[in-house]
Amino acid sequence: MNYEFATRMTDLTPSAVREIMKNAVDKDDILFASGNPATESFPLDAIREITADILENDAFEVLKYGISEGYQPLRDRLAQRMKDKYNCTQDFDEVLITSGAQQVIDMACRVLLNEGDTVICDSPCYMGALNVFRSYNVRIKGVEMEKDGLNIEQLEQLLKTEKNVKLLYVVPNFQNPTGITMSMEKRKAVYALCKKYGILIIEDDPYGELRYSGQALAPIKSMDTDGIVIYSGSFSKVLSAGIRVGFSYAPKPVSDKIILAKQVSDVHTNTFFQVMADRFMEKYDLDRHIAFIREIYRRKSALMIGAMQQHLSDCEFLIPDGGLFVWCALPKSIDMLDYCMKAADNKVMVVPGTTFTISPEYPCNAFRLNYSTPSDEQIVAGVELLGKTLRDYK
Amino acid sequence: MNYEFATRMTDLTPSAVREIMKNAVDKDDILFASGNPATESFPLDAIREITADILENDAFEVLKYGISEGYQPLRDRLAQRMKDKYNCTQDFDEVLITSGAQQVIDMACRVLLNEGDTVICDSPCYMGALNVFRSYNVRIKGVEMEKDGLNIEQLEQLLKTEKNVKLLYVVPNFQNPTGITMSMEKRKAVYALCKKYGILIIEDDPYGELRYSGQALAPIKSMDTDGIVIYSGSFSKVLSAGIRVGFSYAPKPVSDKIILAKQVSDVHTNTFFQVMADRFMEKYDLDRHIAFIREIYRRKSALMIGAMQQHLSDCEFLIPDGGLFVWCALPKSIDMLDYCMKAADNKVMVVPGTTFTISPEYPCNAFRLNYSTPSDEQIVAGVELLGKTLRDYK
Repeated sequence: MNYEFATRMTDLTPSAVREIMKNAVDKDDILFASGNPATESFPLDAIREITADILENDAFEVLKYGISEGYQPLRDRLAQRMKDKYNCTQDFDEVLITSGAQQVIDMACRVLLNEGDTVICDSPCYMGALNVFRSYNVRIKGVEMEKDGLNIEQLEQLLKTEKNVKLLYVVPNFQNPTGITMSMEKRKAVYALCKKYGILIIEDDPYGELRYSGQALAPIKSMDTDGIVIYSGSFSKVLSAGIRVGFSYAPKPVSDKIILAKQVSDVHTNTFFQVMADRFMEKYDLDRHIAFIREIYRRKSALMIGAMQQHLSDCEFLIPDGGLFVWCALPKSIDMLDYCMKAADNKVMVVPGTTFTISPEYPCNAFRLNYSTPSDEQIVAGVELLGKTLRDYK
Repeated sequence: MNYEFATRMTDLTPSAVREIMKNAVDKDDILFASGNPATESFPLDAIREITADILENDAFEVLKYGISEGYQPLRDRLAQRMKDKYNCTQDFDEVLITSGAQQVIDMACRVLLNEGDTVICDSPCYMGALNVFRSYNVRIKGVEMEKDGLNIEQLEQLLKTEKNVKLLYVVPNFQNPTGITMSMEKRKAVYALCKKYGILIIEDDPYGELRYSGQALAPIKSMDTDGIVIYSGSFSKVLSAGIRVGFSYAPKPVSDKIILAKQVSDVHTNTFFQVMADRFMEKYDLDRHIAFIREIYRRKSALMIGAMQQHLSDCEFLIPDGGLFVWCALPKSIDMLDYCMKAADNKVMVVPGTTFTISPEYPCNAFRLNYSTPSDEQIVAGVELLGKTLRDYK
C-alpha cells in the first residue's frame, strides 16, 4: 500500500526530546532533556488517600462516561480560584477540563484556525505548540524573546502587516524554553495590541504557580474585559503529569466551540483524576503543596545555576525566577547541534535549541536544560560534563 | 468581541444524546438514550486491588509523563491478543494506546484527510464518527445498512464515481445505532473493494466482544494482508468507560503518523489506567469477565426485545446478537421527531434517528434504544410507556 497522508502532516516531525530520550538507554545517562516534574513533588500520600475514598464512595460515578465539559465541582473550584487568585472576574468566562494543557492549545486552534491563517508566537517557542500550529496548515510568525518578554515593536509590525492573523500564543511565566517572564508593562502592551487588532490570545501558563523568586505578576487574562484571552492551566506540574488533567478558562462563545471539538477528539477527560484534582483542592492545602514544590525547584535551580556559573562561564544564560528550565547560549564559535551530540556522547542529554525554532533552519546557538527531573548529584555531575564538553573544543 | 470560528466548526452540532440527557433532570426519567455500560459490568473489586498495587509499587511510574505510543506492556499484550483471538498476524501492524476509541477515529482522520476529500461510512452512522468527519471539512457519503451490513453495490458505485475517496468507516459488529452485524461474505467484499480502489478502512469495533448470541465473525483486520485496515478497540465496554483507554492496531506507516498527531493532541493517554488495563489482562481473566458482561446484556436485551414485541409490535426492529442498542423503526404514519419528544414528555428518553444520519434532513423514521444503562424495571416500564406514546397517536 502506498500511503498518502494529509498535507497537514508534512511539517510534523517527531519531538527532538523524545528522540534524545530514546537514545538515553544507559542507566548512567544524565537527563537534562526531560520536562518531568521532580518525583518528590507528587503528593503521593494524598493521592493514595483520595483514591481509596473515590473507589469506596464514588466508584461508579468515575467509571462511567462523563460529559465533555468536565467534572462540574472541579470546574467550579477552578473558576473560583481564577477569581480569588488572579482577580479574573468577568462573567463571560468559564472553565473546561481538558486532557492536559496540550489539549487546550490543540482545541483552541481547532476551533479558530483555517488553513492559511497566521499564528504569532514567542520565538523560540514551546515545540508542542509549534507542532499544533503546523498540524493546522497555518503560517507561523515568531516574535523575538527579550529579557522581559516579547519584542513589542516586532509584534505590532506583524499585526499590522501579516494577513489573517487569528491568534497570538504566549507563555508569559518562565517560558519554555527560555525561562523568561514577561514584564507587567509588556503584558499590558500585548493585551492592548491584540485588542486593537482583534486577535485572540492563548495564554499558556503551565508553570505560573512555580515561582520561587521575585513578585508574581497578574496573568494577561486578569485584564481581559473584552473576552479575547484563552487561559490554559495544568495540574501536570502541581499534582502529576501522567494524569493528563488541564483546563481552559475562556469566553463562553469560544468554550462552547471547544466543547464540540473535545467531543470529537476524546469525548471527555478521564473522570477519576478530575475527581482526584477536585478532592485535592477541597481537602488538602493546594497552596501549601505548591509552596513545597517551589522550595524543591528553588534549590535545584540554584544548584544548576551555581554549577553553570562554575563550568559554563563562557555561555550566556538568564537566571529564571521559576519554572523548570534554563536556556543556555553557547559561544558563537561553537556549533550548537554538534555540541549537543558531543554532550550526549559524554552521557548528558540536553535539548537543541532548534527544537523550539519556527523552522529548523532558524539560527539558534542555545540549548535547553531542565533541573526538575535530575537528582542533585546528577545536576552537579551533568553540568560539569557539559563544561568538559565545551572545553574539549579548545 | 466578534468571534470568527474555523469553517470546520460550521457543521458541528452538539450531540443530540447530550441534549436529551440534559433535559432528563427528573429522577423518574427512564434513560434509553445513553450508551453507558451497565454499572454491574465494571470489575470493581479487581479495579480496587490493582489500584492499591499500582500506588504501592509503581506510583512514580504512572504519575510522570509517559510516551505517546502508550504503555509498552499493554501494547504488547493487545498485539498478542489480536494475534491469538483474531488471527491478525501481519508483522507490519502495531498497537497504539489512545484516549478512548473516539481518538482512533479522530487521529486516523487527522493524518489521512485533506479538506475536500471524501469519506464513505455506514448510513446511519455513529454520530461521534460523523462529527469527526465534519470537523475535517470532508465530503461524507453514506452506504445504506442492510440486515447483513453495507449495501455492497452502493459501496462500489461510490468508490467508482466519487472523487478523492480516502477512507471507509465501518462498525461491523452490532453497529451503533442499528445493532446490525456485517456478514462474513460482506466483510470479504468490503475488503476486496477497498483493496481494489486503494482505500483505507477504519474498522471500529467497540462492541465486538459483547456478542451474546450467534457465532463470532473474524474482523476485516484479520484479512488485511495489504495494510489497509486501521482497527479500533476499546476498554470502555469491558473495563470502564470513564478511564478513556482505547487502542488502534494499524500498519506501522499509519501508526507512525498517528503518534505524531497524538503528541500534538494530548501528549499521551493517562498512564494509570493503561497500567490498570494491562494488569487486569495479566492477573485476571479478561475473557471470563467478558463472558460475565455478555450474560448481563443477553438478559437485558431479551427483556427489552420481549417488551418491544408486546408493546411496540407496530414497529420494525432487528433482534441484535450483541452490543448495547436496538434500532426501532416507527410506522410510516408517525413523525419520528415528534414521537421522540412525546416519549420524553412521557419520561422516556430515546435518541432520534436523525442524530445518526449524514445530514439532519435525511429521511429517518427510526430511533435508538439502549438496554445496558437502564435497570430491568426501567426497561419494562420504559418500553410500556413507549407503547403508550405510540397508541396515543391513534
